Amino acid sequence: MSAAMPDAQRIWDHCAALGRLSELEGGLTRVFLSREQQAANDLVLGWMRAAGMSARLDAIGNVVGRYEGERPGLPCLMMGSHLDTVRDAGKYDGMLGVVAAIECVRALHARGRRLPFALEVVGFADEEGTRFNATLLGSRAVAGTFKAEVLDNVDQDGVSMRAALRAFGLDPEKIGAAARRREDVLAYAELHIEQGPVLEAEGLAVGVVTAINGATRCAVEIDGIAGHAGTVPMSLRQDALAAAAECVLAIERRCGAEPELVGTVGKLECLPGAVNVVPGKVRFTIDIRAPRDPLRLAAVDDVLAAMKAIAARRNVRLGVTKTHEGGVAACAPWLMDQIGAAIAAEGVPVRRLPSGAGHDGMAIIDLTDIGMLFVRCEKGISHNPAEAITLADVATAARVWLRFIENFDPSRKP
Amino acid sequence: MSAAMPDAQRIWDHCAALGRLSELEGGLTRVFLSREQQAANDLVLGWMRAAGMSARLDAIGNVVGRYEGERPGLPCLMMGSHLDTVRDAGKYDGMLGVVAAIECVRALHARGRRLPFALEVVGFADEEGTRFNATLLGSRAVAGTFKAEVLDNVDQDGVSMRAALRAFGLDPEKIGAAARRREDVLAYAELHIEQGPVLEAEGLAVGVVTAINGATRCAVEIDGIAGHAGTVPMSLRQDALAAAAECVLAIERRCGAEPELVGTVGKLECLPGAVNVVPGKVRFTIDIRAPRDPLRLAAVDDVLAAMKAIAARRNVRLGVTKTHEGGVAACAPWLMDQIGAAIAAEGVPVRRLPSGAGHDGMAIIDLTDIGMLFVRCEKGISHNPAEAITLADVATAARVWLRFIENFDPSRKP
Repeated sequence: MSAAMPDAQRIWDHCAALGRLSELEGGLTRVFLSREQQAANDLVLGWMRAAGMSARLDAIGNVVGRYEGERPGLPCLMMGSHLDTVRDAGKYDGMLGVVAAIECVRALHARGRRLPFALEVVGFADEEGTRFNATLLGSRAVAGTFKAEVLDNVDQDGVSMRAALRAFGLDPEKIGAAARRREDVLAYAELHIEQGPVLEAEGLAVGVVTAINGATRCAVEIDGIAGHAGTVPMSLRQDALAAAAECVLAIERRCGAEPELVGTVGKLECLPGAVNVVPGKVRFTIDIRAPRDPLRLAAVDDVLAAMKAIAARRNVRLGVTKTHEGGVAACAPWLMDQIGAAIAAEGVPVRRLPSGAGHDGMAIIDLTDIGMLFVRCEKGISHNPAEAITLADVATAARVWLRFIENFDPSRKP
Repeated sequence: MSAAMPDAQRIWDHCAALGRLSELEGGLTRVFLSREQQAANDLVLGWMRAAGMSARLDAIGNVVGRYEGERPGLPCLMMGSHLDTVRDAGKYDGMLGVVAAIECVRALHARGRRLPFALEVVGFADEEGTRFNATLLGSRAVAGTFKAEVLDNVDQDGVSMRAALRAFGLDPEKIGAAARRREDVLAYAELHIEQGPVLEAEGLAVGVVTAINGATRCAVEIDGIAGHAGTVPMSLRQDALAAAAECVLAIERRCGAEPELVGTVGKLECLPGAVNVVPGKVRFTIDIRAPRDPLRLAAVDDVLAAMKAIAARRNVRLGVTKTHEGGVAACAPWLMDQIGAAIAAEGVPVRRLPSGAGHDGMAIIDLTDIGMLFVRCEKGISHNPAEAITLADVATAARVWLRFIENFDPSRKP
């Protein structure tokens, strides 16, 4: 293989190397401001420099590599993803996007090629929020939307983020310095595994992301009347579980009616929970997501109305609390078009699909337009040691990504 | 009130007195072979003797009172219920039947009335099975079906039933002596609170029990595939909870289709149980009961078939384990007729209804024919400190019960 083309095997090996930097033995857990993150940063800084970039840690611990354009100081196309993980994670979620972007820069550098814009690759220090129960810390710092109050969040050992930053050699008072100026960043583009089964189901190596879905989450409580399973006739029951079962199916039906919607009851508790007692209380959660806000909000309204009707008909009390509401982060059409053109040029049918999972782009969208390329992952499994991709897909994705970079045309930005 | 009629207030007061003999402070828990049971036995023995009966403890600790008929040694109409309780119980479940039967005998004795058969009242020592996880111990001993292997069961403190019997002053080797001969017992009749809401819903103080329902219990496990709530499209899900929800409604629908059937999913566990994860596994229980075995067995078959179809359509794995199967204990028609006649003579419409809960008659049916009178209880609540009845209903029930006893005609036995 020519050094002037991305080497899929190197991407593969670098993901494997990062995957070994873990506090969890025999698995992968690497959290914000940990010793393992320090080691990962050192590796990535080295790879960036070997790829012809200048590289540094920013004020919150993001690794930032820069490859100048035709002349120094040009605004950049920013690429990247995150270097932290959930607990017992897979080794591609986040890392693949950082490593693949560096490999594309390395190929350009091998050709001695400079573009009419700079390239930057950022390895975000925290996206998952595993340690401090606050997500997107690295990308929020870059976007200038980092909220100082989270500095007081503590980890499971009682260590505050503020203290952890200091121990890492960073100054919590200076996180503002990580924020970038809008005029210095032309766009943000992220390559990431899909974490879902759509591309696999359609036999496609890659796809263009249309939006990072908005999400509404609710906590539901249904109060019926507990009773003796042998003595209360069916016609006199106020069974909280039967009511909840109808709600579960109503949510599934409503969210299954439109291909872009998803709706999930992930958690359900049934009380008192004895084989011979009619359930008196059920608590469950709802998570509804869609790539367009009106689509999601209409579904939420319909689901709430359906549950109210079920509760009224069954004479049980329904309580609903909204626990989260986050709008859509839409990918910019001009970036979708350019990513799509690169996919088509590699002979892959262009599939546009939303992202159900959250990504750094949700924060970076406050700084600049965002675009994303998804890479097929096995059975859609992610946040799990079984997370898997193929070397062939990595090769395809890297070729697409390099082509997108080379042909990137910021003049199409509206 | 004439001493020759049952005194509802005395029944009420005696239930209250028994309700105070508890190991649970501020509540009622009285278990087999406990100090509290000893105290309850002493009270009941005294009430029996005051009512004109001879009274003794039998070989397993049942209190047995006998009121001779027109001449000594006649076969008896056996009445009774149990003197033990569940944990944190109500004070009528069991006790009311013992106390009311004694009061009826007292009224006959006050008139100097002897019948052409003897009367016996038994306060069974264990029906609930609270202490040793084995039910109906007192009535099984009387029926001659006590199984010696349960003597090795231990309570929560590691005390075996064998040791507890000895400490109570009983000989575990001689429990067989509690068994009665068939020719000495004409029938068994029990007065008990309904523990369900049927009589209350229909505005009736009492009703005739048709059968103690048979029951089938199953443990069900559904295996789907867990997935990211944001990334797995609805059409590609194998959601174990949605499948279970359909099963819950199928059970409710099938068992709701026939008035005598009841079917309950009382326990349901959803795994992994996170707001943003599609459920991969659900475990739940099924409890189906009916007053006729073919009715129950057909419902069980239909429910299993429906669940199989649901699992196949949704591409999830279904595992079902039968955990309990117990046939119906039918009340004898000749006893139902005589109890019904007594109700009608008191001006109450005769409502026949099955018993969803278990009773001592389930064991005594191996010795003789059984009949039961149910007394309305508030909201059908039982096995709960909130268990409640009214003094007026006690008065009605006692009048019905005395009338039934006086008019009892064993020649109608087929």
